[in-house]
Amino acid sequence: MYNIGIDVGGTSIKAGLVEDGNITVKSSRDVRKACGFKEVIEDIEYVIDEILKKKKIKIEDISTIGIGIPGVVDKTGCVNCVNLGLKGDPLELKLKEKFPNIKIVVENDANVAAVAEYKYGSMKGYDIGVMLTLGTGVGGGIIINGKPFSGAHGIGSEIGHIILDSNFYTCNCGNNGCFETFCSATAIIRYAQKLIKEGRETLIFNMAKGDIEKITAKMVFDAYKKDDEVARDVVRRFKEYLLKGIMSVIHFIDPEVISIGGGVSNASDIILEGLEEKIKKRVIYNGNGVAKIVIAEFKNDAGILGASAL
Amino acid sequence: MYNIGIDVGGTSIKAGLVEDGNITVKSSRDVRKACGFKEVIEDIEYVIDEILKKKKIKIEDISTIGIGIPGVVDKTGCVNCVNLGLKGDPLELKLKEKFPNIKIVVENDANVAAVAEYKYGSMKGYDIGVMLTLGTGVGGGIIINGKPFSGAHGIGSEIGHIILDSNFYTCNCGNNGCFETFCSATAIIRYAQKLIKEGRETLIFNMAKGDIEKITAKMVFDAYKKDDEVARDVVRRFKEYLLKGIMSVIHFIDPEVISIGGGVSNASDIILEGLEEKIKKRVIYNGNGVAKIVIAEFKNDAGILGASAL
Repeated sequence: MYNIGIDVGGTSIKAGLVEDGNITVKSSRDVRKACGFKEVIEDIEYVIDEILKKKKIKIEDISTIGIGIPGVVDKTGCVNCVNLGLKGDPLELKLKEKFPNIKIVVENDANVAAVAEYKYGSMKGYDIGVMLTLGTGVGGGIIINGKPFSGAHGIGSEIGHIILDSNFYTCNCGNNGCFETFCSATAIIRYAQKLIKEGRETLIFNMAKGDIEKITAKMVFDAYKKDDEVARDVVRRFKEYLLKGIMSVIHFIDPEVISIGGGVSNASDIILEGLEEKIKKRVIYNGNGVAKIVIAEFKNDAGILGASAL
Repeated sequence: MYNIGIDVGGTSIKAGLVEDGNITVKSSRDVRKACGFKEVIEDIEYVIDEILKKKKIKIEDISTIGIGIPGVVDKTGCVNCVNLGLKGDPLELKLKEKFPNIKIVVENDANVAAVAEYKYGSMKGYDIGVMLTLGTGVGGGIIINGKPFSGAHGIGSEIGHIILDSNFYTCNCGNNGCFETFCSATAIIRYAQKLIKEGRETLIFNMAKGDIEKITAKMVFDAYKKDDEVARDVVRRFKEYLLKGIMSVIHFIDPEVISIGGGVSNASDIILEGLEEKIKKRVIYNGNGVAKIVIAEFKNDAGILGASAL
């Protein structure tokens, strides 16, 4: 019997057959933006079918299908996701109807990434772990006693939306001061843009060929390595708030491990430098030890691996 | 068989015999500040002995002794508490030696209060609950699946130390911007003092007979009811940050219920007014429902009741 993991993203649906923690067959399909429930189901069926064809197996050979969704999933597997046009649609139930003999599990994608790291990667062996995905936004996944935790109504572990300070721009969620407005790739870009608009000179502007809309987080980290002053200010601010966010995670959940993933974690040498020492100084009591900070192992495959292990 | 609950505070140790959720016999003793491990053990033995004498029973009639401590308790029951002069002392082990046939459980006092509310009070029937004790500081207690949760090293649920903003004074823990520097009785008093020092006129100053050191949170709430402008500013700021703190609790843990206790909760009519509507507007998705906000049922007896139920 085989397990399939499906990673439903805002732009593509990716699926994989996972054997012993390895993806042996892959399939993917682009999704239409805010397409709706019927189309999402069709796309999921399509990628499952592709997997079966490639592996030359039948649907009867599948025991579990796990699905990660970039949205809020309630206890009954109903999903709300603006990017896919899902408004409380009963995804888990519908797939159970289509595949009656297969175990179907639907989870929020950040929790799915946390499961991948817990099961196969950087959080393996730890009972309490928190995953922070620093990408376009900040995603959070909580593992307690080996299981993903998303609270009573599916809106827990939305750590990107804990509030850290007042900020110069408002979060997509409508609030001001969310963690993700300080510590995402978007946050890095917007603060660099702000400093440039204020007249600061920087290598970043040349890297972006004079178009601030083309600035990326990578450019900021590259300029930082060249001692660029604006880049240093942007990185200093980013690191200050990453520390604050992590301190809130520790004083809330006190995990054994915090795993940092997402595109920004590619600059791990810069973002981790000095972090653990500062945490030890700021924590209210460290006599019993404090969470270890690690970089996530899986990049693009976390969604498939985690979903297959749900 | 009987259960004893012991509430070790910074100024007194209180114990009670709890039968069917009621405290039938009480005993207490003042403690010396930062007295040390030996003295704390002596005081605990003293209050237990008093209970036995008053009830005319023997130590063999006791099955469980639960103890709440205002400090960090690790997995092995070792305790760190500045106010009592405890530095990683093996409290649970020592009491197990003294009372070998009795189950001994030691927990952080905020978690103990949460257990009392879960077992007998405002959080009864809810599997995931968070208790916020707004007193001199802000204490936090987390209940997950009926059990207190304090993380991997005993420093979880320290919700008073999640960071919400920058503040004009530094927290006792050494960090700036902790929840408790915005939403404790101390925070209310300090902000009122700040506004008075800045030259604002207010009834609060008269209530304190011209001595700002005598200001209490109750005076601020009393002045608020008399439409005092400074009191309104203090309460507005308090409520703004209470909302921010609760939003972080929701986006982190997403509990079914949040119970607010501590001295500040006596002004429940003021602090709860409009709160649930604002939460519903600010939460990232409320289609599945959102935490209910309630006022804690137990005041002084929460420690004894909760400890007896550990």
